[in-house]
Amino acid sequence: MGPSRQEIIRVPLGERAYDIVVGRGAIEEAGARIAALGARTVGLVTDGTVADLHAARVSADLEAHGLRVAAVVVPPGEASKSFGQLEAICDALLGAKLERGDVVLALGGGVVGDLAGFAAAILLRGIRLVQAPTTLLAQVDSSVGGKTGINTARGKNLVGAFHQPSLVLADTALLDTLPEREMKAGYAEVAKYGLIGDAGFFRWCEGHWREIFAGGPERDRAVAQSCRAKAAVVVRDEREEGDRALLNLGHTFGHALERAVAYDGARLVHGEAVAIGLALAFRFSSRLGLCPREDAERVAAHLDSVGLPTRIRDVPGAEAFSAADLLAAMGQDKKVKAGELTFILARGIGRSFVARGIDRTEVQAFLDAELARRSS
Amino acid sequence: MGPSRQEIIRVPLGERAYDIVVGRGAIEEAGARIAALGARTVGLVTDGTVADLHAARVSADLEAHGLRVAAVVVPPGEASKSFGQLEAICDALLGAKLERGDVVLALGGGVVGDLAGFAAAILLRGIRLVQAPTTLLAQVDSSVGGKTGINTARGKNLVGAFHQPSLVLADTALLDTLPEREMKAGYAEVAKYGLIGDAGFFRWCEGHWREIFAGGPERDRAVAQSCRAKAAVVVRDEREEGDRALLNLGHTFGHALERAVAYDGARLVHGEAVAIGLALAFRFSSRLGLCPREDAERVAAHLDSVGLPTRIRDVPGAEAFSAADLLAAMGQDKKVKAGELTFILARGIGRSFVARGIDRTEVQAFLDAELARRSS
Repeated sequence: MGPSRQEIIRVPLGERAYDIVVGRGAIEEAGARIAALGARTVGLVTDGTVADLHAARVSADLEAHGLRVAAVVVPPGEASKSFGQLEAICDALLGAKLERGDVVLALGGGVVGDLAGFAAAILLRGIRLVQAPTTLLAQVDSSVGGKTGINTARGKNLVGAFHQPSLVLADTALLDTLPEREMKAGYAEVAKYGLIGDAGFFRWCEGHWREIFAGGPERDRAVAQSCRAKAAVVVRDEREEGDRALLNLGHTFGHALERAVAYDGARLVHGEAVAIGLALAFRFSSRLGLCPREDAERVAAHLDSVGLPTRIRDVPGAEAFSAADLLAAMGQDKKVKAGELTFILARGIGRSFVARGIDRTEVQAFLDAELARRSS
Repeated sequence: MGPSRQEIIRVPLGERAYDIVVGRGAIEEAGARIAALGARTVGLVTDGTVADLHAARVSADLEAHGLRVAAVVVPPGEASKSFGQLEAICDALLGAKLERGDVVLALGGGVVGDLAGFAAAILLRGIRLVQAPTTLLAQVDSSVGGKTGINTARGKNLVGAFHQPSLVLADTALLDTLPEREMKAGYAEVAKYGLIGDAGFFRWCEGHWREIFAGGPERDRAVAQSCRAKAAVVVRDEREEGDRALLNLGHTFGHALERAVAYDGARLVHGEAVAIGLALAFRFSSRLGLCPREDAERVAAHLDSVGLPTRIRDVPGAEAFSAADLLAAMGQDKKVKAGELTFILARGIGRSFVARGIDRTEVQAFLDAELARRSS
């Protein structure tokens, strides 16, 4: 590839400021950069899939820089975001005598990042975290911003911590081995940043999504631009007391669908749920008269051309869903305040806003209409 | 008792500032003060012992102020500081639909405060916490300062979070029903504040400890002075990166002893371990030539007159301890940096300091000498 062409994005969060390194080969800097943080031991958390592909190389690099590696491998999949796996990681890393000056390295997708990040947040009441996201979804979303957590029987990410990483290494070359379905799922979050506040970026995505998938410089640009967009929102509202909610565009509907399939990734992965949620958010905005119908159609058309689902009926088993169940699932969301529903709606592409106090009957009527389409 | 004579101590931690209300009847303000925080639901966490004594009255007061109460009762004792109980509390409070604006109220001793506080820190990535400590130990130590956590097989408090309370209600009248052994154990932490940095307070304690136990105004004064001393240290160093370590006077030895009895409260409760630890810290300081021998003797004499243990041999089963085991137990402490031991030592009563890089062989020789006393 010739000389490194990585881009460094600074997230200016005061004493919690950190760098995101984006580009092909970023992971090769892990040893040097983590040694520079002053750690002696690295708690390397990964899953079985990623371990087979990348762990040996990363461990060797860490050890070549004088770091001791304590590795913990969790089963792949959303089910690992549990109290049980959290306890297992804490126990393993405490057994390896991790100290306060050491580092947890999360090498994997969103599940590993959320789980290992939460472990870092609570081990010895908080040790440093380095995120090395290996999926597009994790590179553009979950590895940046400090949200960590696990799922409970009551819902997704209802237990966790805000714990900013000390460093993010987003190696876009690692996406070369990513299954196509995962690539598409991550792409939903890329498109989301355009839909939230950057119509120009969405237009660019419409024209270049094939190159993003193929792995050219457009991929690096898309990841970097997504990280910049997310970082800008996080810096304005680190703990989600206001604007940060914008990042949940597509997620209120999306989370409800994930709950409806009991987080069964075989039926629906998070990014697919977000894709449907994005399309629903724009159609709901259009139905409420907030957003031109053409914009809602353009959103669905683009996601559809990429091969992402855009309708509730696209979920396997959707015929069993009811509007009431989906509505109830939304009520458990962390963003609920005093029982009122908060949605992220849009006045158009790139013009999203936080809409509080949305009437449940409006949502129910919209969902009824959407569900009626499944039989058509 | 006539008009309320509570003292309010402000802990000035910027946007995390909070009040500690100290005095007889402080708990009667729970409903009014929590309603004023804007909560709608209170997750009331307590243990079986405290529930029988105080929960009905507190719940009635909360409900009288329009608050919904979701109560969780855990078994009394250190064993409840576990991942299992943490998960049970999170599940119960999520099931009761606690929202981000709501509050967790920890009504109990140090175990309940640490456990419920940690649950508050991670529920929905952090909701507000009100501490209502019901033991002397919790009133003067664990309820103030934001440390929360649970134990693991690897050690005490090795998993947790810094999560400052929004309010502390230290009702000294609740101590009227506290067993004498618990009262003495808490008193060790009161004496500690004098030993750390206030020789005048230690002298006052020597003269007034009987009144503190009996429940006169001296008790309120001792609790308030302890809270002020702790708050001053916490404000200087909220996350234990420096001076806050002073609060661990007596704790490095103490934690090792607690580990040696596998946290068996029948043999040794935390405050008793601290009392022995305080005496050991002063004797070790004297042995190192740092502190006059008379000061070490005065510390042990006062703790002894109160009825607290001051020697390793005072622990039931101490004949099975070895210096090597105790030293290994210290190595697991969170305060370990790069394998070196950090102790809080003293140049005299009220003149404690953080001593880093203490030679293990010195500690081992001291422990060998202390252990040899058990057969004399």
